[in-house]
Amino acid sequence: MDPALADYILENRRLVDDALDYYVPNVETEPRVLHEAMRYSLFAGGKRIRPILAIASAEIVGEDKTSVMPLAVALECVHTYSLIHDDLPSMDDDDLRRGKPTSHKMFGEAVAILAGDALVTLAFEILSSVELARVFPCHRILSVIRDIADACGSRGLIAGQVMDMTFEGKIADESVVERIILNKTAALIKTALTSGARLAGANCEQLDVFSKFGQKLGMVFQIKDDLLDLEGDPEKLGKAVKKDGTRGKATYPALYGADHSSKLMRKLLGEAKKLIEPLGQRAQTLCLLTEYVGQRIS
Amino acid sequence: MDPALADYILENRRLVDDALDYYVPNVETEPRVLHEAMRYSLFAGGKRIRPILAIASAEIVGEDKTSVMPLAVALECVHTYSLIHDDLPSMDDDDLRRGKPTSHKMFGEAVAILAGDALVTLAFEILSSVELARVFPCHRILSVIRDIADACGSRGLIAGQVMDMTFEGKIADESVVERIILNKTAALIKTALTSGARLAGANCEQLDVFSKFGQKLGMVFQIKDDLLDLEGDPEKLGKAVKKDGTRGKATYPALYGADHSSKLMRKLLGEAKKLIEPLGQRAQTLCLLTEYVGQRIS
Repeated sequence: MDPALADYILENRRLVDDALDYYVPNVETEPRVLHEAMRYSLFAGGKRIRPILAIASAEIVGEDKTSVMPLAVALECVHTYSLIHDDLPSMDDDDLRRGKPTSHKMFGEAVAILAGDALVTLAFEILSSVELARVFPCHRILSVIRDIADACGSRGLIAGQVMDMTFEGKIADESVVERIILNKTAALIKTALTSGARLAGANCEQLDVFSKFGQKLGMVFQIKDDLLDLEGDPEKLGKAVKKDGTRGKATYPALYGADHSSKLMRKLLGEAKKLIEPLGQRAQTLCLLTEYVGQRIS
Repeated sequence: MDPALADYILENRRLVDDALDYYVPNVETEPRVLHEAMRYSLFAGGKRIRPILAIASAEIVGEDKTSVMPLAVALECVHTYSLIHDDLPSMDDDDLRRGKPTSHKMFGEAVAILAGDALVTLAFEILSSVELARVFPCHRILSVIRDIADACGSRGLIAGQVMDMTFEGKIADESVVERIILNKTAALIKTALTSGARLAGANCEQLDVFSKFGQKLGMVFQIKDDLLDLEGDPEKLGKAVKKDGTRGKATYPALYGADHSSKLMRKLLGEAKKLIEPLGQRAQTLCLLTEYVGQRIS
């Protein structure tokens, strides 16, 4: 990884982790088991991609990173909630996530469901907190809440999860695979970028750039994820591999094979980078981050 | 029931139902099974108590009921999500709700979990919608979002559900039973009242009255619920009865028996009505509604 990017990621991960620790009730708060479960999944070694994207887009528009930290935390809460629920026995039934037992394996199904519920609710609590309203105009915050609720609602993230399950073992064409990825993964990645930019006061053209770029980056992210499931190292990934094939998941590698999917990913990656060229030198980190998303090994 | 109250409830239920139909994606919207499940539980014959309380408090403060309809819808979405998740096999494992199969019985566990997730998310989508921002100042709307997220978060509704499960079959004293009810039931009922009033521009004294009243009314509501489980007619209730005793749930009837619990409920009901006396004639409907909550047979 480019050393400048490595520094950027490291610094921001630390800030996001500190902010998460600040905003999420500690394990002494009742009900303890619930807050323990929320923190268990939040601090299980996530890459903090979505928070970092929100910080990066806010910085590009000219905002200080500390001001958007509540947004960064909210995005990670939403992301973690979606992972906990996706892993449940009635959904993807996964035992391992980032090398650790999944939430329902650790705390039982009821607490896992409720920890997910509590995390998505906490996201909206943080977004509507006075901290954020002290720094940004209320109408901007409301737009961000709307964007995030949209992205993770029944026509976004949740639609993606339903489609993902519905098409298991069925024949899916490219348009189905694309729609699953756009909803399941790209929607929140795109919204991380646009909401960071929106809070920072981005204009319509800037928002449009972040939106289109985020959609491409989300596609790249998911295709890489699916390639890692096919060819990755389970040790480094911290989870079992080759699950998608066994389950008959609708993915690009299942549709076109690894080589073609890899080429498609590179093509989308190039298009994504081209989209942020007009942002100039300030978008250099985002460019490096895009490369990293396509090259990562976990 | 008092005929004026019956009219009021009937009229508002109709308005809330129409608004729900407007705000919730129709069953033609993909993924169809998800939207079908959301609508199935939303239109399963709920009493719309929380929406009606929000409307009533807004009207008392001087606001038109149509303006607060998005809030009314959001509250019903949150309430319905909590019921769907509470009924799940890993939680209370209920087969019937309002005389119909529960969501997971109809749609399977995965879709039931996701329908709940989608409903709580939709609540925040509606609260942050432009419809509401066109009528009310953004800072007021943000406060309402914060109140609702608080009420249904890990220190509110979800805390109540965790405690409710944790104390099943265990010895619980009055303070535990009270805390369970305050979180599980009273928090959202209180917030329905305060958020309606807050949107309408209530002052601190008014908000304080609604908050205290809502807490008492929530207690009354839950004790009546527990009494109905003990003594109610399963036909009229649309669900099995005497479940709490079998499961060893921590309730007032379990702690003190039906007679004493009934007396306690009447006492709280009297205190609740006394709290809204300062609001004068305008609070007459709320007074009648309080009586109804304590006398209902379903």
